[in-house]
Amino acid sequence: MQISALTTDLYELTMMQGYYLKGCNPQVVFDMFFRRQPFNGGYTVFAGLETLLNSLQNLRFSQGDLDYLQSLSLFRKEFLDYLKDFRFRGNLYSVPEGTIVFPNEPLIRVHCDLMEAQLIESLLLNIINFQTLIATKASRIYLASLGGYIMEFGLRRAQGLDGALSATRAAFIGGAAATSNTLAGKVYGIPVKGTMAHSWIMAFNSELEAFKKYAEIYPDSSILLIDTYDSLGSGIENAIIVGQELKKQGKRFGVRIDSGDLQYLSVKIREKLNKAGLEDALISVSNDLNEEIIHQLIIDKAPIDVWGVGTQLVTGGNDSSLTGVYKLAAKEQKNKLLPTIKVSNNPEKTTNPGVKQVYRFLDSNGSPMGDLLTLEGEKIKPGRPYTFYHPMFEYKHFTLYDYHSAEPMLSLKMKEGEIAQPLPELTDIQAYTKINLEKLDYTFRRIINPHIYKVSLSQELKTLKFRMIHEHTQ
Amino acid sequence: MQISALTTDLYELTMMQGYYLKGCNPQVVFDMFFRRQPFNGGYTVFAGLETLLNSLQNLRFSQGDLDYLQSLSLFRKEFLDYLKDFRFRGNLYSVPEGTIVFPNEPLIRVHCDLMEAQLIESLLLNIINFQTLIATKASRIYLASLGGYIMEFGLRRAQGLDGALSATRAAFIGGAAATSNTLAGKVYGIPVKGTMAHSWIMAFNSELEAFKKYAEIYPDSSILLIDTYDSLGSGIENAIIVGQELKKQGKRFGVRIDSGDLQYLSVKIREKLNKAGLEDALISVSNDLNEEIIHQLIIDKAPIDVWGVGTQLVTGGNDSSLTGVYKLAAKEQKNKLLPTIKVSNNPEKTTNPGVKQVYRFLDSNGSPMGDLLTLEGEKIKPGRPYTFYHPMFEYKHFTLYDYHSAEPMLSLKMKEGEIAQPLPELTDIQAYTKINLEKLDYTFRRIINPHIYKVSLSQELKTLKFRMIHEHTQ
Repeated sequence: MQISALTTDLYELTMMQGYYLKGCNPQVVFDMFFRRQPFNGGYTVFAGLETLLNSLQNLRFSQGDLDYLQSLSLFRKEFLDYLKDFRFRGNLYSVPEGTIVFPNEPLIRVHCDLMEAQLIESLLLNIINFQTLIATKASRIYLASLGGYIMEFGLRRAQGLDGALSATRAAFIGGAAATSNTLAGKVYGIPVKGTMAHSWIMAFNSELEAFKKYAEIYPDSSILLIDTYDSLGSGIENAIIVGQELKKQGKRFGVRIDSGDLQYLSVKIREKLNKAGLEDALISVSNDLNEEIIHQLIIDKAPIDVWGVGTQLVTGGNDSSLTGVYKLAAKEQKNKLLPTIKVSNNPEKTTNPGVKQVYRFLDSNGSPMGDLLTLEGEKIKPGRPYTFYHPMFEYKHFTLYDYHSAEPMLSLKMKEGEIAQPLPELTDIQAYTKINLEKLDYTFRRIINPHIYKVSLSQELKTLKFRMIHEHTQ
Repeated sequence: MQISALTTDLYELTMMQGYYLKGCNPQVVFDMFFRRQPFNGGYTVFAGLETLLNSLQNLRFSQGDLDYLQSLSLFRKEFLDYLKDFRFRGNLYSVPEGTIVFPNEPLIRVHCDLMEAQLIESLLLNIINFQTLIATKASRIYLASLGGYIMEFGLRRAQGLDGALSATRAAFIGGAAATSNTLAGKVYGIPVKGTMAHSWIMAFNSELEAFKKYAEIYPDSSILLIDTYDSLGSGIENAIIVGQELKKQGKRFGVRIDSGDLQYLSVKIREKLNKAGLEDALISVSNDLNEEIIHQLIIDKAPIDVWGVGTQLVTGGNDSSLTGVYKLAAKEQKNKLLPTIKVSNNPEKTTNPGVKQVYRFLDSNGSPMGDLLTLEGEKIKPGRPYTFYHPMFEYKHFTLYDYHSAEPMLSLKMKEGEIAQPLPELTDIQAYTKINLEKLDYTFRRIINPHIYKVSLSQELKTLKFRMIHEHTQ
């Protein structure tokens, strides 16, 4: 599907025209990275790459787009003619989707000319920021539930229709098992599931009749909503009547609680179900859940089998954006790519210069020990000790002797504007994420107050960075 | 443009099939309302209606959609055949876009058969919840700036591409003057604006050269970004050199500050600009702004002309969803529409039964004094005193004697699935919102700790509601 190249901030287009008219269009390298862990968490799950690559490959200015730009009286004909044939023809390096990532390391590296690099900035950030945010939120919810069955049903509270659709994709990557969003099922092949609404109960003359009718039509997937009138009264009693009928037919059923104290209710309802001989009936819960609430319910041993999570999963709740940025790292001068730096009064905002690779050092179990940013071309020789330099404080460092291997994280995903290799299936990305989460030390996965993972500079990069800072500030 | 009718939660479709197979498809009335003011604010701006009406009018199951549903082994052929010709053919009543609204009053009332009502629930809530959230956020930012020039540039941090596009529409309704989102300019006709990025400065050999080149190409819209190296040093000095050249050509220019303390810097920069004879130069600021920060800068008299707001405007910041719901209010029985109620253990969640109208009582300045929910058919006679009953506490009430007029808020917007009348232009909706905000008493508009506006029940509705509650709980 063609993506309108107007999906960009206007200043990208005015700057592009500026570069065009001034003949200033060097080859450049931009890094995409983020600055702060979302959700006060200890890690982040990278997502959105496939969506991005497909968008870049199909980015075009339609005639309607060009007519609109012309109507703004900002752009010259020669520049609009250039846009007519515009294609993104750059190379793009990235970590795979489902990779565990950390602040201030490049997740994506774009190599192209300055005009192309500028045009795609807003699109790239929009896609990666959002899907990465939601994949991370989903993984936190998944971990809090101890790998439980997470059902995402955020469509009605998501930020726009695509805010729902891409959230569903990202939530699946982060560990959600299914979605209520039927369109996401069609588009992404994600399993779709659902229960019933209060309106179903209210549409019939009685709760019992409503349950019975549902079970007649869907004997294999009857999850009965028991809180329309009184969860612990008529709700569970009527559900048990229908559940026992289903059991006679050899069918497994379940109940859903959508209000009230979920620990208190789930314990009481489990007791009632067991007493009625329905030990295998599922208890499904919902009601503005997030990872902290689920974490507490698990600690309190609430007997819950299925977690329905909507609003907070698809919007991120009170952390509703990832702080991803896209910064110039190198620029062609006299046919060579030379490093660039943005020096800020705030040392956290000073960028790491040059074309970089990220090496992840692993222990013998494959658990990450620390990430080292290096300059491209630096060879990391397994077995050799490496000194990790702090990215902001010149004097801080430590040396890693005892590691098993070091793996480069960024690889070529797009070559001259074409997707470089077949992309993994969504289920493979989800499986890859789960493996990565398992390998990550628990202290980084802790929901509350996690350990801080180290992202450091190689000696060569640290020397370059501080030399450039000194040159800029002397 | 056709909208896939799969943009719905799966349970809507399974319930629809249930109603279809059980021959249970009465006429119904559903209310859309929300329960809690977003942003701890005193009012909410209703938005998204045009998007919703267009979507409903173009809602279809394509053959691909039906093939997908068939592949799920959940749906029978006869039901899929019914979906093939599905059109939304209901009536829809709504308040106009740009109306100031409050919790627990119907904003939209849908009259149709139960199957239709169920299908559109998720779509309706998605569109209205999000656009209403963002229009409200924008209006708060607009009011905090005392009606200043708000430039929305949230594309890179928005929740998906449509999360950006519909946020831009809603932000404009709430008072944003312009957007950076070029596609939103084309689609909605919203003015597009932009300045420059740090990468523009870094692409040239010096900051001064970068400023000069920009001013050569865009002499009429040069807003120079001065914080790449040192805002109060090279940044403002180089900008003044270029600003003075532009002034000689009769052009007005401006500077943009994107980091640091905006009060401190704007005061210093205003002094330097004035000393250089550039009293009319604009000062534009950005850096994770929201209404609280802007409110404080205004109180502190920071000399700022243009406010660039991104992330928090398009996502809502830490309040990232509106709590809009869609509840059954009446159902056909024996050819009559009879009221329905959902009684909850939580009195706040007990619904108001029946087909309702909202009357807004105004004083002689046209300022809202209180809203009264009435049953359809109740005639409100101007001049007569009306008693306003509390929606939860049966004994609480007050009587309004001294009001000027009472206006019905809901009117027919869609008749038998077709948009009933021409829809207002977006600029008219923005103007209507501004008038409504002006008429709203300041105490409800206050950014921090606002006054609570009263939404009450008429005597007739109150009597019905508590009678039904007593029947349900006896």
